[in-house]
Amino acid sequence: MTKADLVDLYRDYIACLNRRDWAQLGRFVHDDAIHNDHRIGLAGYRVILERDVEEIPDLFFHVAMLVADPPYVASRIRFDCAPRGTFCGVAVNGRRVSFAEHVIYEFRAAKIAQVWSVIDKAAIEAQL
Amino acid sequence: MTKADLVDLYRDYIACLNRRDWAQLGRFVHDDAIHNDHRIGLAGYRVILERDVEEIPDLFFHVAMLVADPPYVASRIRFDCAPRGTFCGVAVNGRRVSFAEHVIYEFRAAKIAQVWSVIDKAAIEAQL
Repeated sequence: MTKADLVDLYRDYIACLNRRDWAQLGRFVHDDAIHNDHRIGLAGYRVILERDVEEIPDLFFHVAMLVADPPYVASRIRFDCAPRGTFCGVAVNGRRVSFAEHVIYEFRAAKIAQVWSVIDKAAIEAQL
Repeated sequence: MTKADLVDLYRDYIACLNRRDWAQLGRFVHDDAIHNDHRIGLAGYRVILERDVEEIPDLFFHVAMLVADPPYVASRIRFDCAPRGTFCGVAVNGRRVSFAEHVIYEFRAAKIAQVWSVIDKAAIEAQL
Protein backbone atom coordinates (compact mmCIF):
# COMPACT_ATOMS: atom_id res chain seq x y z
CA MET A 1 0.00 0.00 0.00
CA THR A 2 1.44 3.37 -1.00
CA LYS A 3 1.70 6.27 1.40
CA ALA A 4 -1.01 8.16 -0.50
CA ASP A 5 -3.35 5.15 -0.32
CA LEU A 6 -2.69 4.77 3.39
CA VAL A 7 -3.44 8.44 4.04
CA ASP A 8 -6.69 8.17 2.06
CA LEU A 9 -7.67 5.05 3.98
CA TYR A 10 -6.92 6.72 7.30
CA ARG A 11 -9.00 9.77 6.41
CA ASP A 12 -11.87 7.49 5.39
CA TYR A 13 -11.58 5.77 8.77
CA ILE A 14 -11.78 9.11 10.60
CA ALA A 15 -14.81 10.11 8.49
CA CYS A 16 -16.43 6.80 9.45
CA LEU A 17 -15.95 7.63 13.14
CA ASN A 18 -17.30 11.15 12.73
CA ARG A 19 -20.53 9.93 11.16
CA ARG A 20 -20.84 7.17 13.83
CA ASP A 21 -21.03 4.58 11.06
CA TRP A 22 -20.22 1.58 13.27
CA ALA A 23 -21.53 -0.87 10.68
CA GLN A 24 -18.60 0.16 8.43
CA LEU A 25 -15.95 -0.08 11.15
CA GLY A 26 -14.90 -3.56 9.98
CA ARG A 27 -13.70 -2.02 6.70
CA PHE A 28 -10.96 -0.26 8.67
CA VAL A 29 -10.29 -2.29 11.83
CA HIS A 30 -8.84 -5.81 11.93
CA ASP A 31 -10.83 -8.59 13.63
CA ASP A 32 -7.90 -9.13 16.01
CA ALA A 33 -7.10 -5.48 16.69
CA ILE A 34 -4.87 -4.66 19.66
CA HIS A 35 -5.36 -1.36 21.53
CA ASN A 36 -2.66 -0.23 23.98
CA ASP A 37 -1.40 -3.80 24.31
CA HIS A 38 -4.87 -5.28 24.91
CA ARG A 39 -6.35 -7.58 22.27
CA ILE A 40 -9.83 -6.11 21.99
CA GLY A 41 -10.69 -7.12 18.43
CA LEU A 42 -13.12 -5.32 16.18
CA ALA A 43 -15.97 -5.93 18.64
CA GLY A 44 -14.05 -4.40 21.54
CA TYR A 45 -12.95 -1.49 19.36
CA ARG A 46 -16.57 -0.73 18.55
CA VAL A 47 -17.53 -0.96 22.25
CA ILE A 48 -14.90 1.67 23.12
CA LEU A 49 -16.10 4.03 20.38
CA GLU A 50 -19.78 3.61 21.27
CA ARG A 51 -18.96 4.29 24.92
CA ASP A 52 -16.91 7.38 24.00
CA VAL A 53 -19.79 8.80 21.96
CA GLU A 54 -22.28 7.99 24.74
CA GLU A 55 -20.09 9.88 27.23
CA ILE A 56 -19.22 12.68 24.76
CA PRO A 57 -22.21 13.28 22.45
CA ASP A 58 -20.43 16.04 20.49
CA LEU A 59 -17.22 14.03 19.99
CA PHE A 60 -15.55 14.96 16.68
CA PHE A 61 -12.16 13.73 15.50
CA HIS A 62 -10.12 16.49 13.86
CA VAL A 63 -6.81 15.29 12.42
CA ALA A 64 -4.42 18.15 13.12
CA MET A 65 -1.27 16.31 11.99
CA LEU A 66 -0.67 13.15 10.06
CA VAL A 67 2.65 11.34 9.59
CA ALA A 68 2.44 8.30 7.32
CA ASP A 69 5.14 5.73 6.72
CA PRO A 70 3.52 2.44 5.60
CA PRO A 71 2.45 0.32 7.40
CA TYR A 72 2.37 3.01 10.12
CA VAL A 73 0.32 6.16 10.58
CA ALA A 74 0.91 8.60 13.43
CA SER A 75 -1.60 11.34 14.06
CA ARG A 76 -2.37 14.22 16.36
CA ILE A 77 -6.13 14.37 16.81
CA ARG A 78 -7.72 17.51 18.27
CA PHE A 79 -10.92 17.41 20.28
CA ASP A 80 -13.08 20.33 21.33
CA CYS A 81 -16.00 18.80 23.19
CA ALA A 82 -18.06 18.58 26.36
CA PRO A 83 -17.83 15.18 28.11
CA ARG A 84 -21.02 14.71 30.14
CA GLY A 85 -19.46 13.26 33.29
CA THR A 86 -16.04 11.89 34.17
CA PHE A 87 -13.63 11.47 31.27
CA CYS A 88 -10.11 10.05 31.63
CA GLY A 89 -10.64 10.12 35.38
CA VAL A 90 -11.39 13.86 35.31
CA ALA A 91 -14.81 15.18 36.42
CA VAL A 92 -15.51 17.34 33.39
CA ASN A 93 -19.29 17.36 33.96
CA GLY A 94 -20.38 18.98 30.73
CA ARG A 95 -17.78 21.73 30.56
CA ARG A 96 -16.12 22.35 27.19
CA VAL A 97 -12.50 21.21 26.94
CA SER A 98 -9.90 21.15 24.16
CA PHE A 99 -7.23 18.50 24.12
CA ALA A 100 -5.18 16.29 21.85
CA GLU A 101 -4.69 12.56 21.43
CA HIS A 102 -1.50 11.23 19.83
CA VAL A 103 -2.03 7.87 18.17
CA ILE A 104 0.20 5.49 16.25
CA TYR A 105 -1.52 2.84 14.10
CA GLU A 106 -0.05 -0.24 12.49
CA PHE A 107 -1.97 -1.43 9.43
CA ARG A 108 -2.06 -5.01 8.20
CA ALA A 109 -3.95 -6.09 5.07
CA ALA A 110 -5.29 -2.52 4.77
CA LYS A 111 -6.84 -2.56 8.25
CA ILE A 112 -5.82 -1.20 11.65
CA ALA A 113 -4.13 -4.09 13.45
CA GLN A 114 -2.58 -2.28 16.42
CA VAL A 115 -3.08 1.08 18.09
CA TRP A 116 -0.93 2.94 20.64
CA SER A 117 -2.79 5.94 22.03
CA VAL A 118 -1.97 8.67 24.56
CA ILE A 119 -4.52 11.31 25.60
CA ASP A 120 -3.35 14.66 26.97
CA LYS A 121 -5.03 14.31 30.37
CA ALA A 122 -2.91 17.11 31.88
CA ALA A 123 -4.36 19.53 29.31
CA ILE A 124 -7.92 18.57 30.29
CA GLU A 125 -7.16 19.06 34.00
CA ALA A 126 -5.53 22.43 33.33
CA GLN A 127 -8.81 23.75 31.85
CA LEU A 128 -11.02 22.90 34.84
CA MET B 1 16.66 15.32 3.57
CA THR B 2 15.81 11.69 2.89
CA LYS B 3 13.78 9.57 5.27
CA ALA B 4 16.87 7.51 6.15
CA ASP B 5 18.88 10.66 6.91
CA LEU B 6 16.07 12.02 9.07
CA VAL B 7 15.86 8.76 11.04
CA ASP B 8 19.64 8.78 11.59
CA LEU B 9 19.51 12.41 12.72
CA TYR B 10 16.66 11.68 15.11
CA ARG B 11 18.50 8.72 16.64
CA ASP B 12 21.60 10.91 17.07
CA TYR B 13 19.41 13.48 18.85
CA ILE B 14 18.06 10.83 21.25
CA ALA B 15 21.62 9.58 21.92
CA CYS B 16 22.62 13.18 22.70
CA LEU B 17 19.84 13.39 25.29
CA ASN B 18 20.76 10.05 26.84
CA ARG B 19 24.36 11.10 27.40
CA ARG B 20 23.21 14.52 28.73
CA ASP B 21 25.36 16.23 26.12
CA TRP B 22 23.65 19.62 26.36
CA ALA B 23 26.57 21.36 24.62
CA GLN B 24 25.62 19.47 21.44
CA LEU B 25 21.88 20.17 21.68
CA GLY B 26 22.17 23.04 19.21
CA ARG B 27 23.15 20.56 16.49
CA PHE B 28 19.64 19.15 16.69
CA VAL B 29 17.34 21.89 17.98
CA HIS B 30 16.52 25.12 16.15
CA ASP B 31 17.26 28.46 17.85
CA ASP B 32 13.57 29.35 17.57
CA ALA B 33 12.14 25.97 18.59
CA ILE B 34 8.46 25.80 19.55
CA HIS B 35 7.32 23.23 22.15
CA ASN B 36 3.60 22.57 22.55
CA ASP B 37 2.78 25.96 20.97
CA HIS B 38 5.24 27.88 23.18
CA ARG B 39 8.26 29.49 21.54
CA ILE B 40 10.97 28.36 23.96
CA GLY B 41 13.98 28.41 21.65
CA LEU B 42 17.09 26.30 22.05
CA ALA B 43 17.79 27.86 25.46
CA GLY B 44 14.34 27.02 26.78
CA TYR B 45 14.55 23.53 25.32
CA ARG B 46 17.77 22.95 27.24
CA VAL B 47 16.19 24.30 30.44
CA ILE B 48 13.36 21.77 30.16
CA LEU B 49 15.76 18.88 29.60
CA GLU B 50 18.07 19.90 32.44
CA ARG B 51 15.06 20.21 34.76
CA ASP B 52 13.76 16.78 33.67
CA VAL B 53 17.11 15.15 34.42
CA GLU B 54 17.36 16.96 37.76
CA GLU B 55 13.90 15.63 38.71
CA ILE B 56 14.51 12.18 37.17
CA PRO B 57 18.20 11.27 37.55
CA ASP B 58 17.76 7.89 35.79
CA LEU B 59 15.83 9.34 32.84
CA PHE B 60 16.53 7.36 29.66
CA PHE B 61 14.80 7.84 26.31
CA HIS B 62 13.97 4.54 24.63
CA VAL B 63 12.46 4.94 21.17
CA ALA B 64 9.88 2.16 20.97
CA MET B 65 8.36 3.27 17.65
CA LEU B 66 9.45 5.69 14.97
CA VAL B 67 7.37 6.93 12.05
CA ALA B 68 9.27 9.20 9.68
CA ASP B 69 7.85 11.22 6.80
CA PRO B 70 10.15 14.20 6.10
CA PRO B 71 10.05 16.84 7.46
CA TYR B 72 8.12 15.05 10.25
CA VAL B 73 9.07 12.39 12.76
CA ALA B 74 6.58 10.80 15.15
CA SER B 75 7.82 8.62 17.95
CA ARG B 76 6.66 6.61 20.91
CA ILE B 77 9.26 6.99 23.65
CA ARG B 78 9.25 4.57 26.59
CA PHE B 79 10.45 5.57 30.04
CA ASP B 80 11.15 3.30 32.98
CA CYS B 81 12.38 5.59 35.73
CA ALA B 82 11.99 6.90 39.26
CA PRO B 83 11.07 10.60 39.43
CA ARG B 84 12.27 11.96 42.78
CA GLY B 85 9.23 14.08 43.66
CA THR B 86 6.21 15.29 41.74
CA PHE B 87 6.24 14.64 38.01
CA CYS B 88 3.44 15.72 35.65
CA GLY B 89 1.48 16.77 38.72
CA VAL B 90 1.72 13.26 40.20
CA ALA B 91 3.50 12.66 43.54
CA VAL B 92 5.73 9.82 42.39
CA ASN B 93 8.27 10.33 45.20
CA GLY B 94 10.97 8.00 43.99
CA ARG B 95 8.80 5.05 43.02
CA ARG B 96 9.57 3.34 39.72
CA VAL B 97 7.07 3.98 36.92
CA SER B 98 6.84 3.00 33.26
CA PHE B 99 5.08 5.23 30.79
CA ALA B 100 5.17 6.48 27.23
CA GLU B 101 5.44 9.87 25.57
CA HIS B 102 4.12 10.36 22.03
CA VAL B 103 5.92 13.13 20.23
CA ILE B 104 5.65 14.64 16.76
CA TYR B 105 8.61 16.73 15.54
CA GLU B 106 8.81 19.07 12.58
CA PHE B 107 12.35 19.53 11.24
CA ARG B 108 13.56 22.63 9.40
CA ALA B 109 17.10 22.96 8.02
CA ALA B 110 17.97 19.62 9.66
CA LYS B 111 16.96 20.79 13.14
CA ILE B 112 13.88 20.34 15.33
CA ALA B 113 11.76 23.43 14.76
CA GLN B 114 8.51 22.39 16.44
CA VAL B 115 7.47 19.70 18.91
CA TRP B 116 4.04 18.43 19.92
CA SER B 117 4.27 16.15 22.95
CA VAL B 118 1.76 14.18 25.02
CA ILE B 119 2.80 12.22 28.13
CA ASP B 120 0.69 9.29 29.33
CA LYS B 121 -0.13 10.75 32.73
CA ALA B 122 -2.98 8.30 33.28
CA ALA B 123 -0.50 5.40 33.02
CA ILE B 124 1.72 6.97 35.70
CA GLU B 125 -1.26 7.48 38.04
CA ALA B 126 -2.44 3.90 37.51
CA GLN B 127 0.87 2.56 38.87
CA LEU B 128 0.79 4.45 42.17
